[in-house]
Amino acid sequence: MKMQIGFIGLGQMGEPMARNLVKDFDLRVFNRTPGKDAGLVAEGATRVARPKDLADCSVIVTMVANDQALEEVALGTDGFGANFAAGGVHLSMSTVSPATSRKLAERHDYVAAPVFGRPPAAAAKKLWICASGSARAKERVRPLLDALGQGVYDFGEDPGAANIVKVAGNFMMLAATEAMAEAFTLAEKNGIARDEIAKMLTETVFACPIYQNYSKQIAAHAYRPAAFPLPLGMKDIDLVLQAAAASKMPMPLAHMLKDRLLSGLAKGRADMDWTSIALGVSEDAGVKS
Amino acid sequence: MKMQIGFIGLGQMGEPMARNLVKDFDLRVFNRTPGKDAGLVAEGATRVARPKDLADCSVIVTMVANDQALEEVALGTDGFGANFAAGGVHLSMSTVSPATSRKLAERHDYVAAPVFGRPPAAAAKKLWICASGSARAKERVRPLLDALGQGVYDFGEDPGAANIVKVAGNFMMLAATEAMAEAFTLAEKNGIARDEIAKMLTETVFACPIYQNYSKQIAAHAYRPAAFPLPLGMKDIDLVLQAAAASKMPMPLAHMLKDRLLSGLAKGRADMDWTSIALGVSEDAGVKS
Amino acid sequence: MKMQIGFIGLGQMGEPMARNLVKDFDLRVFNRTPGKDAGLVAEGATRVARPKDLADCSVIVTMVANDQALEEVALGTDGFGANFAAGGVHLSMSTVSPATSRKLAERHDYVAAPVFGRPPAAAAKKLWICASGSARAKERVRPLLDALGQGVYDFGEDPGAANIVKVAGNFMMLAATEAMAEAFTLAEKNGIARDEIAKMLTETVFACPIYQNYSKQIAAHAYRPAAFPLPLGMKDIDLVLQAAAASKMPMPLAHMLKDRLLSGLAKGRADMDWTSIALGVSEDAGVKS
Amino acid sequence: MKMQIGFIGLGQMGEPMARNLVKDFDLRVFNRTPGKDAGLVAEGATRVARPKDLADCSVIVTMVANDQALEEVALGTDGFGANFAAGGVHLSMSTVSPATSRKLAERHDYVAAPVFGRPPAAAAKKLWICASGSARAKERVRPLLDALGQGVYDFGEDPGAANIVKVAGNFMMLAATEAMAEAFTLAEKNGIARDEIAKMLTETVFACPIYQNYSKQIAAHAYRPAAFPLPLGMKDIDLVLQAAAASKMPMPLAHMLKDRLLSGLAKGRADMDWTSIALGVSEDAGVKS
Repeated sequence: MKMQIGFIGLGQMGEPMARNLVKDFDLRVFNRTPGKDAGLVAEGATRVARPKDLADCSVIVTMVANDQALEEVALGTDGFGANFAAGGVHLSMSTVSPATSRKLAERHDYVAAPVFGRPPAAAAKKLWICASGSARAKERVRPLLDALGQGVYDFGEDPGAANIVKVAGNFMMLAATEAMAEAFTLAEKNGIARDEIAKMLTETVFACPIYQNYSKQIAAHAYRPAAFPLPLGMKDIDLVLQAAAASKMPMPLAHMLKDRLLSGLAKGRADMDWTSIALGVSEDAGVKS
Repeated sequence: MKMQIGFIGLGQMGEPMARNLVKDFDLRVFNRTPGKDAGLVAEGATRVARPKDLADCSVIVTMVANDQALEEVALGTDGFGANFAAGGVHLSMSTVSPATSRKLAERHDYVAAPVFGRPPAAAAKKLWICASGSARAKERVRPLLDALGQGVYDFGEDPGAANIVKVAGNFMMLAATEAMAEAFTLAEKNGIARDEIAKMLTETVFACPIYQNYSKQIAAHAYRPAAFPLPLGMKDIDLVLQAAAASKMPMPLAHMLKDRLLSGLAKGRADMDWTSIALGVSEDAGVKS
Repeated sequence: MKMQIGFIGLGQMGEPMARNLVKDFDLRVFNRTPGKDAGLVAEGATRVARPKDLADCSVIVTMVANDQALEEVALGTDGFGANFAAGGVHLSMSTVSPATSRKLAERHDYVAAPVFGRPPAAAAKKLWICASGSARAKERVRPLLDALGQGVYDFGEDPGAANIVKVAGNFMMLAATEAMAEAFTLAEKNGIARDEIAKMLTETVFACPIYQNYSKQIAAHAYRPAAFPLPLGMKDIDLVLQAAAASKMPMPLAHMLKDRLLSGLAKGRADMDWTSIALGVSEDAGVKS
Repeated sequence: MKMQIGFIGLGQMGEPMARNLVKDFDLRVFNRTPGKDAGLVAEGATRVARPKDLADCSVIVTMVANDQALEEVALGTDGFGANFAAGGVHLSMSTVSPATSRKLAERHDYVAAPVFGRPPAAAAKKLWICASGSARAKERVRPLLDALGQGVYDFGEDPGAANIVKVAGNFMMLAATEAMAEAFTLAEKNGIARDEIAKMLTETVFACPIYQNYSKQIAAHAYRPAAFPLPLGMKDIDLVLQAAAASKMPMPLAHMLKDRLLSGLAKGRADMDWTSIALGVSEDAGVKS
């Protein structure tokens, strides 16, 4: 008999992740917006009407937009929390604050397991996963993690730890964006094509996915359609800065990025990719883009 | 008959580079500090007493400490410039300012060809080379570039262009250092080992040489012996900021790095690697390191 | 018959302010911590047990520590809000967020009237007051404002406006602190006594109270006892940054100050004055203080 | 018999200063651009053709544009330096680097005496003067300083000290500009008129000349005609940053200001007042000005 798994949140990331579970598990799914589960149901998943209908699952995976949404599906009126089966584990894969993870972990068995990777990586089981929580709970969700990603990094028992790593990693990505934007614009102002310096540096010393992907957008100032929209970037930088404030950690570079994002929002760029902070670098330099 | 090549500057980078030329070319070498050429002479190179003794070489390679040293070997009293053979090309591989390259290119045929890579890469012919200058001059030095590196990127005719790319790339490396330092220290203050977050991020989304090498030093706060001493880092950040000022280019992240370097010097860290700016991040966060 | 006035919050600021009202008004006072009202009661004020016991006053003045305390005395179980007399006006003089002011102004007649000035200025009726709220409500509280300060500046009907001006002003004070700290430390590193440069500049081009008072502390690195403790400074910078985020306003200098304050807290300086961020400037410069 | 005084540099500052000397001293004047000395000659000054024609004066006052101009009039081919009378004192009142002061002080008796104040203050003998140099030389120039300003602050024997104080003071002025620009724009985005917050704060806690004068320009975004053009501001911030670099002093706020100035130049604002960096604050905030 297959393990019963609940899955909440069938967005751009959640849907392809759930697809990777539907064959090997007895999958029950919930999404706030209806209709996103058609493919999954066709493949054998069961649709439920409310998160609380998943309360007897062995594991409930959540992949939702933010801390508030996570609290609602877990602890809200229709949340699964009140009736969550003894022995059930909440596998929380959204990018949320360590504080929220710690809070939920006081209510039920909880594993924080945020991921690095975008929708195509999710579909291809190529996500990188950071996990933290009690050893017992992590052991129970291990088959799911293996079914969803290409590698799992264990950050111990503190349920907030994996979230710290996730938001710190996202911060590093946007920091790389700022660095590229300054470098490419300096080059441009000296007669060098943005895409030529981008190509050189990302084929050599910076030959890694983040630099290679982001540099193309930054070099061309091509931010639509947004792979990761600016307001989500703001959410993530806010998460890292909240964690920093809570732990008395000055982060001047993170603050610089926050200002870039605020400026982007002020200029009406909510529909652009978060790498569009590079437009601010060009504008400050008097370069039309 | 072999092409006659002059080589000036047998430091940590220059010496292994010259070794890669000694078999295939008629190599004549000069170094300000005597004794560094013993190995080269043993392999067939000829020692000269002054840069001007190289003036009849087809190509003179320079790999010296800074702009001032370069101007001296080229234009000083004992410099090769005054008598440089018609048709001779100056292959200038040091990290110097675009302004100096442009100035020298007005005196003689000149190719700027700064490199990315450290001494072991130099020895292994694994340098990455940025080149700029007149097409004719670049063509003449092509055999040397192929003998020294694993790839050459051409940035056009402006002799200063390759230097811009080089200093912009170095800026991006130190920017990555700051980003890692902030991320790792945030993690540390939340109970996560610095080397564990470093390992996770540099095996996945940041899997490229700079992040992998630098993160080890930063995670362990291990800055001695210095692969690239802090004062050299200051030189390079100054070069990028001079280029920025000359082209009216605001670079807030580069300025942040300059302050980190100044602080490192103020605290007596001239013998540490430039990644030791990460100590400042920890100190500001009240973390003993 | 004297106007009936409620006064909530008898801290370092509230107590001397209430003293200035006790003769001319029928004053009723509440403080969470008992005992602070002895002097006031001796002069004729009436002590009440709960904020709700003030609900039939014509005006209720609040001078409490932060947004949370204000919400509690107004809207909490024992708060005055539920029974607040029709026609009563809440004169809210604490430094709180514009958002809290706007929220409370939806519940009852409300005037935001935060002040500039420290306890001695409060005692001497020398406070500067920023006021905003409905015209009618401002007119009703005018006699109290005149009894408390030396000048009132009217910022219109938006109840949040006066709070914006207050937190922006506090931001400017800490910005002046950073500027002085950098200037004085530069001087010190060049052999000039900190108090000599401080004296010159604050007797001439910067001859105003903030610079004159703060420069003495900064020049001498004398931060205890704290006139305005660092954690209160953090509260205020957080208020300004929240307002900035809500209005999509990049504030790089405010963010720089936030990092200085975080560093101060991380180094255990919660009992020092907020001007102690100048210690961070000296430490970054390698100067023992 | 009157003391023989040479005066070099009859610009916007130098001309009114020289006017204040012409009655009480035997004044000989030089200016690179001819014609500026007409008024002075009419009042009894003698025009000379070259700086070296002043070499037998007791004191030579210099008030020129920058370090380079100062070096030229002192040490250039036509400079006064070679033949400067034994016992003559160079009273150097320009805003130049401490390094240049120290260098010149090795050649001849030298007093650095940079000033705070604009042309009307110069005309009204209301300058504030910072002085440094040997005690004997300062004593000799004392009558001139008293004739030019309303107060002299003595910073000891290091000839560079007075320059440090001057450039540090100018840095603090531009820092105040940034602070006001952020505060006023935050207010503006919250519906408060820029001139109203400016009026409140500069009549109360910031009631000093710099804030009062600058705030009017910043509130109205009125930067033409320039009282102090942006390129001169850049010169001064460069002087402070050079002094900072030379003394290993991180100055993050000064670097922020440098970026603002660079951005202003990049946007074609060389003819605006240096307070126009406030335009950058508004632009980053998406506010049309």
